[in-house]
Amino acid sequence: MYKIVLMRHGESTWNLDNRFTGWTDVDLTAKGAAEAKNAGKVLKDAGFTFDLAYTSVLKRAIRTLWLTMDEMDMMWLPVINDWRLNERHYGALQGLDKGETAAKYGDEQVLVWRRSYDTPPPPLEENDERASFNDPRYARLPKSAIPLTECLKDTVERVMPAWDEDIAPAIRAGRQILISAHGNSLRALIKMLDGISDADIVGLNIPNGQPLVYELDADLKPIRHYYLGDQVAIAAATAAVAAQGKAR
Amino acid sequence: MYKIVLMRHGESTWNLDNRFTGWTDVDLTAKGAAEAKNAGKVLKDAGFTFDLAYTSVLKRAIRTLWLTMDEMDMMWLPVINDWRLNERHYGALQGLDKGETAAKYGDEQVLVWRRSYDTPPPPLEENDERASFNDPRYARLPKSAIPLTECLKDTVERVMPAWDEDIAPAIRAGRQILISAHGNSLRALIKMLDGISDADIVGLNIPNGQPLVYELDADLKPIRHYYLGDQVAIAAATAAVAAQGKAR
Repeated sequence: MYKIVLMRHGESTWNLDNRFTGWTDVDLTAKGAAEAKNAGKVLKDAGFTFDLAYTSVLKRAIRTLWLTMDEMDMMWLPVINDWRLNERHYGALQGLDKGETAAKYGDEQVLVWRRSYDTPPPPLEENDERASFNDPRYARLPKSAIPLTECLKDTVERVMPAWDEDIAPAIRAGRQILISAHGNSLRALIKMLDGISDADIVGLNIPNGQPLVYELDADLKPIRHYYLGDQVAIAAATAAVAAQGKAR
Repeated sequence: MYKIVLMRHGESTWNLDNRFTGWTDVDLTAKGAAEAKNAGKVLKDAGFTFDLAYTSVLKRAIRTLWLTMDEMDMMWLPVINDWRLNERHYGALQGLDKGETAAKYGDEQVLVWRRSYDTPPPPLEENDERASFNDPRYARLPKSAIPLTECLKDTVERVMPAWDEDIAPAIRAGRQILISAHGNSLRALIKMLDGISDADIVGLNIPNGQPLVYELDADLKPIRHYYLGDQVAIAAATAAVAAQGKAR
């Protein structure tokens, strides 16, 4: 039997501002940093240990991982930064306040963009300063791999090769793995692991900074999964995520 | 022409206590953390950018790197943690106060252990709790690779394969590299780069937390090297390192 731990980053400044973040590289809030440290404490207290970590190239996931590793006294843990674990790209909505967007386009349209499996928001223009073509962290990618917008289906399609080519072989090789990522890149992994339908995956809410354990059989099929830590706090964090994107 | 940056970790708690540290996993002091942040600022202000970093598996070097990356807004930088870049193992002296050791063995013997190229300090016993055999960060190494003591010659012999097999090929492939390491693993690299003799390398003092730039030709031979930043502070930090190990 194998065990992996998935973790969404702690609260970010734009979670707090209720802005569409996507590939924008915002940092954790003080609360988000505390969530990450607490995740490390919860993992340590539960006796977890790791020998490999994966994260995105976005600092809210990286800092969450660093704080977790530091709290576990495992700063030496090898870390692979994979852009394919980035958050879903939110196109032209990136940087917009979710409430304002809802007021402008209507709750229904925003909910479609947030929760439809295959309807992407309007794309960024190629020359938009928010586009990632000149960002050095993506310098080794072909331009065609860098999105200007994504629906969740697009995100799933870029996350899956990271699982198939890198993460799953490492699990089979016996590596004990921690993944620090984002709401939608984790949805992609969970959709695949649990065989969740296109319609249902968009309704799955993942709380910030809570370690989610998946126990897998020899074929990497889930036996069970559970959040570690204070279950009341986890339920509250999940409800807070579900409430995002409604007009205020 | 290629350019690499070498950096010794910021001041550690045992630098401050004047203890032999070696493979002991002590953290930075507040001063050491400030040195690391300042290194990031100095590198950013000088227009440096990187696409790959190497460090050891010891937290004083890792935290120095993290703080530097954070200050440069490059937390996404891929990091390779290589145990071969660890500090020289200090054998049975690890954990001892340098002044006390000097008082017990005499300044001359301590200076031999610190500064002879090929005389190691007394080894740890295999069952000494300070030995690294059960440390999970070394779990993938054969027991025979894990030292119980080292002279500088031993350190050079383990550092060189990291250069030859990994770092040098990456430089030739055009990667822009930052190395955050330790006084003696950096001595090993500098000995090789500048062709310094066995007798002379032991007298080379490397200040904490100061970026050291090496410009290399197409054959990776040094054209010139220089410390970035405030030259007066660098001279003072170098003198402080040179003064360590004298009886107090």
